[in-house]
Amino acid sequence: MIFLATVAITTYHLNSTTSYSDAEKEVTDVATVKKPKASPNMYKEMPKYIKKLQHTIVNELEKLEGVGGGKFVWDSWLRPEGGEGISCVLQDGNVFEKAGVNVSVVHGNLPAAMEKQMRARKKEGSVCHPHNPNAPTVHFNYRYFELRDKDDNSVDGGFFTKKSDPKAWWFGGGCDLTPSYLYEEDAKHFHQVIKQECDKNDLSYYPKFKKWCDEYFYIPHRQEARGVGGIFFDDLEDKDSDIIFKFVQDCGNSFLRSYIPIMQKRKDMPFTEEMKIWQQLRRGRYVEFNLVYDRGTKFGLATPGARIESILMSLPLTSRWQFKHEPAFHSREQEMLEVLKTPRNWI
Amino acid sequence: MIFLATVAITTYHLNSTTSYSDAEKEVTDVATVKKPKASPNMYKEMPKYIKKLQHTIVNELEKLEGVGGGKFVWDSWLRPEGGEGISCVLQDGNVFEKAGVNVSVVHGNLPAAMEKQMRARKKEGSVCHPHNPNAPTVHFNYRYFELRDKDDNSVDGGFFTKKSDPKAWWFGGGCDLTPSYLYEEDAKHFHQVIKQECDKNDLSYYPKFKKWCDEYFYIPHRQEARGVGGIFFDDLEDKDSDIIFKFVQDCGNSFLRSYIPIMQKRKDMPFTEEMKIWQQLRRGRYVEFNLVYDRGTKFGLATPGARIESILMSLPLTSRWQFKHEPAFHSREQEMLEVLKTPRNWI
Repeated sequence: MIFLATVAITTYHLNSTTSYSDAEKEVTDVATVKKPKASPNMYKEMPKYIKKLQHTIVNELEKLEGVGGGKFVWDSWLRPEGGEGISCVLQDGNVFEKAGVNVSVVHGNLPAAMEKQMRARKKEGSVCHPHNPNAPTVHFNYRYFELRDKDDNSVDGGFFTKKSDPKAWWFGGGCDLTPSYLYEEDAKHFHQVIKQECDKNDLSYYPKFKKWCDEYFYIPHRQEARGVGGIFFDDLEDKDSDIIFKFVQDCGNSFLRSYIPIMQKRKDMPFTEEMKIWQQLRRGRYVEFNLVYDRGTKFGLATPGARIESILMSLPLTSRWQFKHEPAFHSREQEMLEVLKTPRNWI
Repeated sequence: MIFLATVAITTYHLNSTTSYSDAEKEVTDVATVKKPKASPNMYKEMPKYIKKLQHTIVNELEKLEGVGGGKFVWDSWLRPEGGEGISCVLQDGNVFEKAGVNVSVVHGNLPAAMEKQMRARKKEGSVCHPHNPNAPTVHFNYRYFELRDKDDNSVDGGFFTKKSDPKAWWFGGGCDLTPSYLYEEDAKHFHQVIKQECDKNDLSYYPKFKKWCDEYFYIPHRQEARGVGGIFFDDLEDKDSDIIFKFVQDCGNSFLRSYIPIMQKRKDMPFTEEMKIWQQLRRGRYVEFNLVYDRGTKFGLATPGARIESILMSLPLTSRWQFKHEPAFHSREQEMLEVLKTPRNWI
């Protein structure tokens, strides 16, 4: 364990803002000899890619907002302990109640106190919450994490130079869909797009990561899933890092293809006041998951000096808790609940 | 520790719905010889008192709602493992967005798995969230807890009979005020009423319990208090249980006197859309405290078969999270924040 105090940590990930929260690796792994090849420059390649992706996504989401619609506010920040980030947030637009696309590149030493929390995962991050109850919330998050010897971490005016390969590295991420009302075709489309990208890279990925997603985004006290699924993966390091990076890029690049067509169909559909209330109740469940169960959020909140605003960016603009709300028999609300109680495969 | 498996637990408390959550005693205390006298019938007296108090409070809150105003819905329940409860909830009334007054009388055996959690506190419970941003949210909670030998816990058609004194017992509770906008006179009035009741019973109570309240209802990641304070106490067992019961009744009976006059002044005050938004943001903080820090809520959610609706009854009907909201310089919102960052004594 002493070893950890001597390594420097560098994280490069989209939609995450503090480094330690993404320290998702079992400490013992650090000492393990890795067979897959590390890419010495991933610490530069991953941020380059995710910053580009951030721009693409922000542009497309703004297009969806239409003329006179909401614009993202860019908020870039420097972490005193090392690292930088760019939070993009759109609030109360035409289409989105709240949407955030967040990039962070964080590096620093791992405090001894963090060792026990090393498996904590951070899932706060980019979330789009639309106004229209027919339109689903989406969340995605891709990240790269590496551990290096302390003396290999030289920072010079914001530019990093590394002398050797990282001691350990891994990728994590995924994306998932949370509708208030079920449109089977939307859930199918969303999963189809992701499955295609998974299958291109490894046929074992999709079934494994879809299951992982259903298990991770689950609210035990409600006995229901947060949404209809997607993919979730972590500690991915079974192939050369270049190969996994390619997979992560395929996933990242497919995000707009999986979500925008759904939004185009749903964003202007008529809805009633009752539907809006149901959506707000579902948003309340989203808050419950993120504040009570999401390991990264919990860990982020417990980190002194953490950027609370970024950690809680994933929370909806508005939400609701109503005592003993029960959907009517055979209603669309009940239909939605049933799907959340028994996750489906969709394809 | 084996000892615990052989005792039965009976709790009688206002505003709480599962027994184990209120098991707030260090396990080792069970074996300690208690000097203060236990009242053999407290398990009957406390529920009788709190049920009466529930009726009084519900009536007075409904009066505040006025003609055509909201009415409380009474929801009584039986716990399969033992116990009963009555949840009263008013939603979307004239004055209150959401108000709940909850009584529970729970008994059962203490599972071995609960031992470690014995210090968990349950703070969900009666909360009144008004519509008007000038009117404060209030929370109060009083509870009695006792441990008895298993064979001393005979239940017969809902009536309990006990042969001997409890092996251990204690009281806990308190009340606290959470305004969105500061009215010093309200904070002073609220504290004055409570202080008077404390002083009548023990001059050391008020300073100790006010401090405890400020410390307990604190949101570390925001570095601010949830509200302007009140009192909070726990593990109270330093005097004969009849004497502490008298103190608890004084507190309970003073609730309406501490809150209703404030509501009468504030409930019909004019307010702007901006004030409503600020109130909703403050409600978001309330949710953050309850879901992330409140030991009882966390413990309740983790208890299999817990009544989730009752545990989360304290959450506001509506709330809001806005990225990087910052009150204007010298605004009333900033004034409120400053008070929350530096708790005051008020009297």
